[in-house]
Amino acid sequence: MAIDAVIPFKPKNPKTRLSCVMEQEEREAFAQAMLSDVIAAAQAGGCSPLLLCTSPYERPGARTLLDPDGLNESLNRLLATSKSPILIIMADLPLADGAAVSRLVSTAADMAVVPGRGGGTNAIFLREPSRFRVNYYGASFLKHMQIAMDAGLSVDVVDSFRLHTDVDEKEDLVEVLIHGKGEARRCLESLGFTLSIEGGRVGVKRGAHKETR
Amino acid sequence: MAIDAVIPFKPKNPKTRLSCVMEQEEREAFAQAMLSDVIAAAQAGGCSPLLLCTSPYERPGARTLLDPDGLNESLNRLLATSKSPILIIMADLPLADGAAVSRLVSTAADMAVVPGRGGGTNAIFLREPSRFRVNYYGASFLKHMQIAMDAGLSVDVVDSFRLHTDVDEKEDLVEVLIHGKGEARRCLESLGFTLSIEGGRVGVKRGAHKETR
Repeated sequence: MAIDAVIPFKPKNPKTRLSCVMEQEEREAFAQAMLSDVIAAAQAGGCSPLLLCTSPYERPGARTLLDPDGLNESLNRLLATSKSPILIIMADLPLADGAAVSRLVSTAADMAVVPGRGGGTNAIFLREPSRFRVNYYGASFLKHMQIAMDAGLSVDVVDSFRLHTDVDEKEDLVEVLIHGKGEARRCLESLGFTLSIEGGRVGVKRGAHKETR
Repeated sequence: MAIDAVIPFKPKNPKTRLSCVMEQEEREAFAQAMLSDVIAAAQAGGCSPLLLCTSPYERPGARTLLDPDGLNESLNRLLATSKSPILIIMADLPLADGAAVSRLVSTAADMAVVPGRGGGTNAIFLREPSRFRVNYYGASFLKHMQIAMDAGLSVDVVDSFRLHTDVDEKEDLVEVLIHGKGEARRCLESLGFTLSIEGGRVGVKRGAHKETR
């Protein structure tokens, strides 16, 4: 049986730190494109996507749970009653691929985790979900390592930049334009984003809107 | 025979983008600490470190080549005459470990590469070095992929955040304090750096100098 890949998703007004370069509708489209890439990676890695949404959202091919509560509260309710292994994977990992997801869910340890940049946690695989509880925000990677230790769980820190690269800010779009292969990259290109190189550093710039082509 | 791991290193006034939080002598000590971690990772991954230095530098246990020329020029001279496989790995990767280096040098492809953040290239393994030439700076990852394609070389992009995380700026120090296990982390701690969490974001702060303890 495929492992449930729980993907928390906020359909309305997501990714506000991208407001400097995208309108709200564009951020919503980009967030959905990144979600598509994560769903595809989860499926390629042998998992069955289960979206955990803060407001109503439907998507062909993925089951949806609606829970307007906070991320930690809703996930911990889910973990407490789960009888089979679960992968929790964030929706803003557009470089994710099946190989990286496979490495996570095939760990020999009790759990496997991929840290995000800046101390976050981008993916957690739990063999026995009810033995763990999440505590996102801030330096969540360190908190999750401590929770695992307190619970006596062995932890495998999976070394993947594809799952490590979460997209929150304008600078992160560089990674999507360089390493992305899916919907998120196509979305950025359709919005007119291209790489720019100034003074040896790589950034992104946005040209004319190309929504009509 | 162990594979040569060529590690370009600038002993004098390195890492100038850290000037905001470190004096020149401290930056030199920190750069040497990061180099120690890269040397240890290369050795653990089955390679023999060979430092390529822009000014005279000696270090027990590592061979040294002195070449004051530019990075591309000195590396390309080396590659052109190399008859056996080479790993080129940057000196500012303090999260590097033997497992990640092993994955690189055990590729089935003609070459393996690990991108850095922002379009850079942090490590390149070349089975036949003379078939390749490097072109660092700017979006070097894309340039290196193009050079490989033009030369008809198969490329394996190795998915490692430990080799992906190069340390150039203050914000990058967060990663060392969270994920580092070696000399670079100890160096930062001895300089008084600790994690700081403000408004949900993780940064670093520097307390009183502790050099005398």
